[in-house]
Amino acid sequence: MFNFKITKKLGRARVARYKTPHGVILTPAFIPVATKATIKTLDSNDVRKIGFNSILANTYHLMLQPGADLVKKMGGLHSFMNWQGPIFTDSGGYQVFSLGKGLAYGVSKVHKKTVGSLAPYSKKSLVKITDNGVEFRSHLDGKKIFLRPEDSIRIQEKLGADIIFAFDECTSPTDSRAYLEKSLERTHKWAERCLRAHERKDQSLFGIVQGGDYKALRQASARFIGSLPFGGFGIGGSFGKKEMLKVLDWTIPFLPEEKPRHMLGIGVIEDIFEAVERGVDTFDCVEPTRLGRHGTLFTKTGRMRILSAKYRADKKPIEADCNCELCANYSRSYLHHLFKANEILGMRLATIHNLTFMHNLMENIRKSINNGKFTSFKSQFLRKFR
Amino acid sequence: MFNFKITKKLGRARVARYKTPHGVILTPAFIPVATKATIKTLDSNDVRKIGFNSILANTYHLMLQPGADLVKKMGGLHSFMNWQGPIFTDSGGYQVFSLGKGLAYGVSKVHKKTVGSLAPYSKKSLVKITDNGVEFRSHLDGKKIFLRPEDSIRIQEKLGADIIFAFDECTSPTDSRAYLEKSLERTHKWAERCLRAHERKDQSLFGIVQGGDYKALRQASARFIGSLPFGGFGIGGSFGKKEMLKVLDWTIPFLPEEKPRHMLGIGVIEDIFEAVERGVDTFDCVEPTRLGRHGTLFTKTGRMRILSAKYRADKKPIEADCNCELCANYSRSYLHHLFKANEILGMRLATIHNLTFMHNLMENIRKSINNGKFTSFKSQFLRKFR
Repeated sequence: MFNFKITKKLGRARVARYKTPHGVILTPAFIPVATKATIKTLDSNDVRKIGFNSILANTYHLMLQPGADLVKKMGGLHSFMNWQGPIFTDSGGYQVFSLGKGLAYGVSKVHKKTVGSLAPYSKKSLVKITDNGVEFRSHLDGKKIFLRPEDSIRIQEKLGADIIFAFDECTSPTDSRAYLEKSLERTHKWAERCLRAHERKDQSLFGIVQGGDYKALRQASARFIGSLPFGGFGIGGSFGKKEMLKVLDWTIPFLPEEKPRHMLGIGVIEDIFEAVERGVDTFDCVEPTRLGRHGTLFTKTGRMRILSAKYRADKKPIEADCNCELCANYSRSYLHHLFKANEILGMRLATIHNLTFMHNLMENIRKSINNGKFTSFKSQFLRKFR
Repeated sequence: MFNFKITKKLGRARVARYKTPHGVILTPAFIPVATKATIKTLDSNDVRKIGFNSILANTYHLMLQPGADLVKKMGGLHSFMNWQGPIFTDSGGYQVFSLGKGLAYGVSKVHKKTVGSLAPYSKKSLVKITDNGVEFRSHLDGKKIFLRPEDSIRIQEKLGADIIFAFDECTSPTDSRAYLEKSLERTHKWAERCLRAHERKDQSLFGIVQGGDYKALRQASARFIGSLPFGGFGIGGSFGKKEMLKVLDWTIPFLPEEKPRHMLGIGVIEDIFEAVERGVDTFDCVEPTRLGRHGTLFTKTGRMRILSAKYRADKKPIEADCNCELCANYSRSYLHHLFKANEILGMRLATIHNLTFMHNLMENIRKSINNGKFTSFKSQFLRKFR
């Protein structure tokens, strides 16, 4: 049902055809994030038209609303959101981290506003972690929830994605080495519990490598998680760019060559090049869509802030050679106006453009690996893109 | 350049082909409102796909942002928003009323929030009306603006719509008869000034009938405005349903049969039937799109509040025989979830559905007039639609 076939290698970078029950993912691939079963402002047909066949939805958000049982009753995520292609779900671990240490550290991806009513921001963690699982409060209604690794798997089975992730503890850059060691041991035990709990044969369960910024811990984690019978592997954690490169260099050599590797939460364009070069196959990140909603558009010469006054009377499209709904039909001036006037359409068109840009970029990256020209494509692209 | 050809009459109701420089409008027609050069959440291609070829934009909003000069520089509204079909612009008079007496009376369509910072709501008018024109403050930045009838025409010429409206004073139901008489005299003088000021031959200027709730004033206004060389006529005012019926009965017989009649701000489905029956050709209103954004969907059996818990696990589409993007692809359950989760996509899909409903309704209304069966269609439709 799953088959990962590497068709070309160039150093550690590789091109592959990843067969899943809902279609083939050509890798390296960017997987757009449909947090609550929609890529914000877009419906499934919009995303298909851009060219994507795979998306990632967030278990944490969906378990709270509308709930995994409801999604299952509606026939699973594919049917619920009318998406025929492959779907990934994460395990909820990262969001729980976001509610806890991520909040305190200021790197949370759960918006401050949404937790504001539950706890004084950056003062008290909303999360208690024990060996058995995680207790946290819903950011929606404050309800206490206890989530064990087995619960995350059961929920992901109900959601019904093609590719699901083991429940892990995402640590914070402020954690001590002693804490990281204890946490890693727990994450490894949870990985085994997830494998035991997972029953659906039409889903591939990915393990997640953790270990913070410590080479020895990352290598130990890659070796241990890599030895378990997972369908693929995620590389997790919360880090800056420098640490990301080190973590990939430490980790990838210990992961089985023949299985797919997913980088969680990575979508900054410069980082994608680095990760592909180091052997990562798929990425998910809200970066292109979130930037779009805030009026930042990707172009071959870098990020364009459309609210800048210089675009007020600019008749040109964002990019002359882009065929997306925005560039094919509307000027920079019109988009500038939509953002100035707080019109939702602006967010939508910018999202469509940025995802089109990402889709084309990944196609060109695959092509450059196939042609043996990845390194020169990377340097040419990044020289212009600032 | 303009030609209004009545192809079928049934009592006062009529079907016509209204030729404009940007295409033929089949009437009776509903004209969706693109307030700030976008029908909220939709782009021009979306609106075309639904089936509409005509839209109405608001002069008041566009003159403030992005400004008429900018729109002109960008090639006019058609080019700015990439809309190839006919465009209407209103004169700004109604919005100025909304900032003034409309606010005090509580029927303003300018949102309370947007004027909150300028004046204590319902305490002080933001508007001063003199015979020469209207002084008001921008709801965006508080800047004082003086708008004469000539200015409204000049601005509408810059925006470049096909059908534009004379600048009028929209009175309030709380105004005295004495005030209404004085105001009507002013509106009539302004109508003549608008006609003198209007230069573009590729635009049709519509006069507006006012006169409040008074039969004598409405008839006098219809007679006077109807005698001027306008391309068509708008029926203006702020009133409830009962008053609307009376006003139409008083007014329409005095308007020239061979010219198009537009009803400003009317879009409640029950009212559209009444107005068509009384000889109105076109309507604009934010009702279908605004209701959609708030989760109220049109169905043949009435208005559906999608946030109701009974739709939580409802696999059916909103309407089984509707082919819109929403009904063809997504369940009530999914739409319920999108609204619960505050996802913009919910507003967008509901807007598409409601506009599709309006488009089909108008098509059926035209058909029923052509078949001589308008009365039975109306009563059948309204018996089910509650």
